Amino acid sequence: MRIFTFTEPRKIVFLFKLLDFMEFLDRYQQIVADAIAKYTFKDKPAELYEPMNYIISHGGKRLRPIMVLMACDLFGGNLKEAIKPALAIEFFHNFTLIHDDIMDEAPLRRNKPTIHTLHGINVGILSGDGLMLKAYKFFEDLEPEIFKACIRIFTHTGLLLCEGQQYDINFETQENVTFDDYIRMITYKTGVLSASSFEIGALIAKANFKDAKSIFNFGKHIGIAFQIMDDYLDVFGDQAQFGKKHAGDIYENKKTVLYLMAREHATKEERKELDYWYSKKTDNIDKVYGVEKIFRRTKVDEKALRLIEKHNEIGQSYLQKIDIPEEKKKPFAELANYLLRRES
Amino acid sequence: MRIFTFTEPRKIVFLFKLLDFMEFLDRYQQIVADAIAKYTFKDKPAELYEPMNYIISHGGKRLRPIMVLMACDLFGGNLKEAIKPALAIEFFHNFTLIHDDIMDEAPLRRNKPTIHTLHGINVGILSGDGLMLKAYKFFEDLEPEIFKACIRIFTHTGLLLCEGQQYDINFETQENVTFDDYIRMITYKTGVLSASSFEIGALIAKANFKDAKSIFNFGKHIGIAFQIMDDYLDVFGDQAQFGKKHAGDIYENKKTVLYLMAREHATKEERKELDYWYSKKTDNIDKVYGVEKIFRRTKVDEKALRLIEKHNEIGQSYLQKIDIPEEKKKPFAELANYLLRRES
Repeated sequence: MRIFTFTEPRKIVFLFKLLDFMEFLDRYQQIVADAIAKYTFKDKPAELYEPMNYIISHGGKRLRPIMVLMACDLFGGNLKEAIKPALAIEFFHNFTLIHDDIMDEAPLRRNKPTIHTLHGINVGILSGDGLMLKAYKFFEDLEPEIFKACIRIFTHTGLLLCEGQQYDINFETQENVTFDDYIRMITYKTGVLSASSFEIGALIAKANFKDAKSIFNFGKHIGIAFQIMDDYLDVFGDQAQFGKKHAGDIYENKKTVLYLMAREHATKEERKELDYWYSKKTDNIDKVYGVEKIFRRTKVDEKALRLIEKHNEIGQSYLQKIDIPEEKKKPFAELANYLLRRES
Repeated sequence: MRIFTFTEPRKIVFLFKLLDFMEFLDRYQQIVADAIAKYTFKDKPAELYEPMNYIISHGGKRLRPIMVLMACDLFGGNLKEAIKPALAIEFFHNFTLIHDDIMDEAPLRRNKPTIHTLHGINVGILSGDGLMLKAYKFFEDLEPEIFKACIRIFTHTGLLLCEGQQYDINFETQENVTFDDYIRMITYKTGVLSASSFEIGALIAKANFKDAKSIFNFGKHIGIAFQIMDDYLDVFGDQAQFGKKHAGDIYENKKTVLYLMAREHATKEERKELDYWYSKKTDNIDKVYGVEKIFRRTKVDEKALRLIEKHNEIGQSYLQKIDIPEEKKKPFAELANYLLRRES
């Protein structure tokens, strides 16, 4: 995390809020970590289950299971009932990572060798399949009505994730990707899983249908905003913080929101230049300079930030609709702040 | 199917019974075919869903969905309620085929190019994942109690299939595969899915727990017997009927029930010879002659047939336990006959 300088009063307040929130997050993270340790798979054959334990143990921020717990807490549910479903979400997320890494031929994930790199593609496919199925088992303690509601959301979310992944693959060769295509793709790939995590937590707490949908929509729009921020930071972020290669998306010709908005607002000349750069994969730094120049000229950096703000506001408006004391909803607004910081 | 000669009275009776049963099977097959046509996936993106439609449309005998319908009928359920869950089983089965074909690098399935051959491994992985999720959706019309019972069985079955597949992969390099290891592997890979198909049909018909378990166990043992028959026919079957390469399992060094029993009952000398042949992969026909000689000397052909009979009998004994008029149970016994014919 960025080291804050204590010169601007506004930032100090933000810092304290963030510290509070980090403590808050830590508490939930501990619950998830304990549950993961408790439910480590001991099934046989080890060749199938050890790769699952391997990827799950490598952590990540565990934000999705935390979202389940937060929503359950918000609506006054029994946190104990939400723990296994929270793990289901985390397992499902990790299943998608295992299969995505095969598809992307990724050698590393969270700085560790990917499963297919260690054990081959077959183990990757099969342990991914198994992890998805294990995820379903983690809802089985719920009573039938809630079980059914959760499983419906879970399955639907899984299908949208697959669809989003396929759209993303299609974009690589698709000539005319529209802005709406892009928003749909990131909604399916990123927005829906956080949305569903909240909704499942709400349902376990027996929230009413309307509130469950509101928290779903909060999660969806924060997820969309987060994904746009990811595109933004790739080019305009502080790379030392961000920990990724600067402008990796440009090198990869990825049709990010920046690219799509730039193409829309570019002059004929600029569009021609953009198309030229995106017609080839090269490590030439001139490509990044050339594309960034157009990004700045078309002001897509500002436009992207406004878009993030727009989705954040839509998300917050859904949060408003939930008839629960503001104090209890504060962590949700802070989670959004945390996710949409311009530093990470 | 084999052309029967009308010389032996016993066989004529069998022929007529088989014809009746084939008509019976045809009726169910038509219901499944109609449902598959009705529920063809029209979702987008087509790149994700068309491969699913492709593999499902290539048919096969549809025995597993038929088992769901048969069990639902047996216990007096509403067949309409069982149709979508029956498709779920068929979809799930096809999902495993898509992923298995990638793992086996199989170019063909049911004489058509496999999905990964046509569209690459990534589409194979993703459309397989999607098909598994679609399968879950096909239970959603069931009321919560039955929904939950079915999903539990379905998920558990899926996990056992993954475990069975992993055991099968392990056997390739595992030195000491025991007879029990083998029975567990085929139970997970073959027995459990037919068993669960029956059980799910029974639950939809609101059969009691005991009867549902009995029909499950009937399916399990018939499935085990069927898999042993598959091993038997590979070596001792009529290849013109069987439509597969003679002794493919021997060429592939597969640790089939014949191999395992032969190794157990072989003399020291024979075991040495068997180990010699199974230590290398060769297309040399002498290998097949050499191994078959030991198979015959150790009488594993007779032993395998006895084992098939044993599991058939266990299966039938579970069928007996179900307190329903014999007449209604007849198709189940005939299904077993049909599956365990020595001709196909």
